[in-house]
Amino acid sequence: MRMYDIIRHKRDGMALSPKEIAFFIRGFTDGSIPDYQASALLMAIFLRGMNPEETAILTDCMAKSGDIVDLSSIPGIKVDKHSTGGVGDKTSLIIGPIVAACNVPVAKMSGRGLGHTGGTVDKLESIPGLRTAVDRVEFFRIVKEAGIAIIGQSGNIAPADKMLYALRDVTGTVEHLSLIASSIMSKKLAAGSDAILLDVKTGSGAFMKTLEDSIALAQAMVDIGNRNNRDTVALITDMDTPLGHAIGNSLEVIEAVETLQGKGPVDLTAVCLELAANMLVLAQQGSLEECRHLARQAIAGGEAFQRLVAMAKAQGGDVSVLKDTERFPKAPMAVCLKAGRDGYLRHINTEACGIASVVLGAGRARKEDEIDHSAGIILRKKPGEQVWEGEILAQLHTAREEQLPEAMELLREAIEVGNAPPAPVPMLYARVTADGVEVL
Amino acid sequence: MRMYDIIRHKRDGMALSPKEIAFFIRGFTDGSIPDYQASALLMAIFLRGMNPEETAILTDCMAKSGDIVDLSSIPGIKVDKHSTGGVGDKTSLIIGPIVAACNVPVAKMSGRGLGHTGGTVDKLESIPGLRTAVDRVEFFRIVKEAGIAIIGQSGNIAPADKMLYALRDVTGTVEHLSLIASSIMSKKLAAGSDAILLDVKTGSGAFMKTLEDSIALAQAMVDIGNRNNRDTVALITDMDTPLGHAIGNSLEVIEAVETLQGKGPVDLTAVCLELAANMLVLAQQGSLEECRHLARQAIAGGEAFQRLVAMAKAQGGDVSVLKDTERFPKAPMAVCLKAGRDGYLRHINTEACGIASVVLGAGRARKEDEIDHSAGIILRKKPGEQVWEGEILAQLHTAREEQLPEAMELLREAIEVGNAPPAPVPMLYARVTADGVEVL
Repeated sequence: MRMYDIIRHKRDGMALSPKEIAFFIRGFTDGSIPDYQASALLMAIFLRGMNPEETAILTDCMAKSGDIVDLSSIPGIKVDKHSTGGVGDKTSLIIGPIVAACNVPVAKMSGRGLGHTGGTVDKLESIPGLRTAVDRVEFFRIVKEAGIAIIGQSGNIAPADKMLYALRDVTGTVEHLSLIASSIMSKKLAAGSDAILLDVKTGSGAFMKTLEDSIALAQAMVDIGNRNNRDTVALITDMDTPLGHAIGNSLEVIEAVETLQGKGPVDLTAVCLELAANMLVLAQQGSLEECRHLARQAIAGGEAFQRLVAMAKAQGGDVSVLKDTERFPKAPMAVCLKAGRDGYLRHINTEACGIASVVLGAGRARKEDEIDHSAGIILRKKPGEQVWEGEILAQLHTAREEQLPEAMELLREAIEVGNAPPAPVPMLYARVTADGVEVL
Repeated sequence: MRMYDIIRHKRDGMALSPKEIAFFIRGFTDGSIPDYQASALLMAIFLRGMNPEETAILTDCMAKSGDIVDLSSIPGIKVDKHSTGGVGDKTSLIIGPIVAACNVPVAKMSGRGLGHTGGTVDKLESIPGLRTAVDRVEFFRIVKEAGIAIIGQSGNIAPADKMLYALRDVTGTVEHLSLIASSIMSKKLAAGSDAILLDVKTGSGAFMKTLEDSIALAQAMVDIGNRNNRDTVALITDMDTPLGHAIGNSLEVIEAVETLQGKGPVDLTAVCLELAANMLVLAQQGSLEECRHLARQAIAGGEAFQRLVAMAKAQGGDVSVLKDTERFPKAPMAVCLKAGRDGYLRHINTEACGIASVVLGAGRARKEDEIDHSAGIILRKKPGEQVWEGEILAQLHTAREEQLPEAMELLREAIEVGNAPPAPVPMLYARVTADGVEVL
């Protein structure tokens, strides 16, 4: 078998065989296939496409290019959750404890933030002392003890995906549905769960800006999961406005705590309950209606919050900050952005909010940047609310005085106040399963 | 300007701007653009195409990536000729002297043979002592003295084309019309002539096997030439059967001498006269009809043959072999292939004949192979001729006794004898100019 022929087959619009795909991924990973042949194939895939079977096999090969986490020692059906990322997306910190509170084990590996979106690992690390770099033995021990552990990605997970992504990034072959879907799903397959819930964000703060693109990505990922024997379901949720009010690491943990205590924002609570219910369905805990009830009960009974505390403690965190969130270290400066006129908050440019929070120190512009866990933004008003001139629209928290004007300006431009309220936007758009798309 | 954006533009089907094309070729040649980005762009070009303007600009940029030969010190209109290559194609050795005999200077750089097709430089070097590695000063001196010089490609001609071709060769991006046409034409533009005649071969022994593909290639090249201010015309000529009877270096020189003396094969003579006449038209020597007459006169008057002798002498060759071709060194073995039955010669697989001649020592399978100038094949019968069982179909000349069975077998399979004569095939199919395609 020659890489040359594989390139020509895809160039001419043929479907690649499982053996050809395996040959490519193996050879690219071990260095025997050079970058210039891989990039020619990637462009041919970009322009000719891959059918669902090819996509599923590519994903499987990328997953198997490194370690496959073996979760079999943990009893029960293990359900993973993946969000395509957004601004203020602290759902993992809420859903994980809810699901664990329903006696479904949660053994989750999460990522760090980059660019305008945050990462669960960074948020967790704003709890003083909490460790996310945990070896596999301790990981499993914590899941067994606390029913839940959320740690950083460790080991050699899908190295082929990492290498391919780096090449796609410089050869104009990133924005292709099958390649995006297989990249995400290869890491999920390698993470070893039995079932996968996907939270596909849509809107101005999401990777996919339109509902149509978001549904297409969800369908591609659900198909990959199910073809690889993982029960996979996706929810399309709104990211046209930041989720909840808090953007920034400890600020988001505080909001997660409030939500687990039943005092969270309506939008965030609704999305988390629906995601948790769907995870419980995948864990075969009952019908969707039954699982919604279980999720609500887990919050109402306080058991979900207790699971967050148990996990944080097991991972070495100082849980006093969770029991009294006033104890979280605070940023030295808090400045308010006020409304310049009366009217209605019409829209928030969500990506711009994410960038403003990075400017304040809450995120990374580059991989090697340090994070300030106390920095961030609290949005006091959300789209649809009435505002009066001089009213506080948002609070900016930071230690970087010199960056404040830039962040303030970004936020001022991001928040649009107009004469009439905007049309209401749903929080949940659709549910995608192996059976099709159910519009909600 | 970033290569990344150039790749994306072509990926999305946009036409590249002259600045983008120049940026790519400059950066690829100086090494600042890596192979993996170039191969991604090449695949995008392969699948999205280039319009005629892009193709012409790419060709110009490749031509200008190295030396541009300055022929301005030679008076008159300099016309180059290029053949897309075939088996038994000794036309340059005949046309050059005809045109020079009509007082149009011929300053030609030619290539060596590779694979199943021969090269003019190898053929010339079968004249003992003849030098084709000649510096520019001597090149011009010979053209001024003898009216004609044919030398090997020297200097740094279109290095971008050489580098791009090497990359295309391993990334499945060779067989694209615009890329093929620009590769050929970049070297012709750099060779410095005022006008270009293209001999595009068609049929089983040609690079383009179908008339349709051959015409498309001719149109692309004619367009590139004319857009770059070179008067360019193409003839589509037959290569479904070897040209003339001789295949192999000194054997082909002998046939060229016979043709220049008016005793050549009918097919070869007709093609050479038409090509020469078209070169004379491009050199503004009169109408096509007038130029045909001039070409015939140059042979009939002996002046064309004298020009070959003068050129060979000026390039250091022993011209006694031209005056008495019996003096050419002969291969130690000559073996005959005889007809196994009565009938008509129906078809000759021309590519297989070329490969058989390489096996006998007349060509190179790899660049570094040595050539045996006396080796080759004389075809005694051509398609349409009646043959009798036991009659000689071909003679094989070689010094490689151990290779004879393989060459004999190849040739036996290549020559098809059947019950009825084949339909006659034209020698000249079409003439392609800036004004369009004229079917002949």
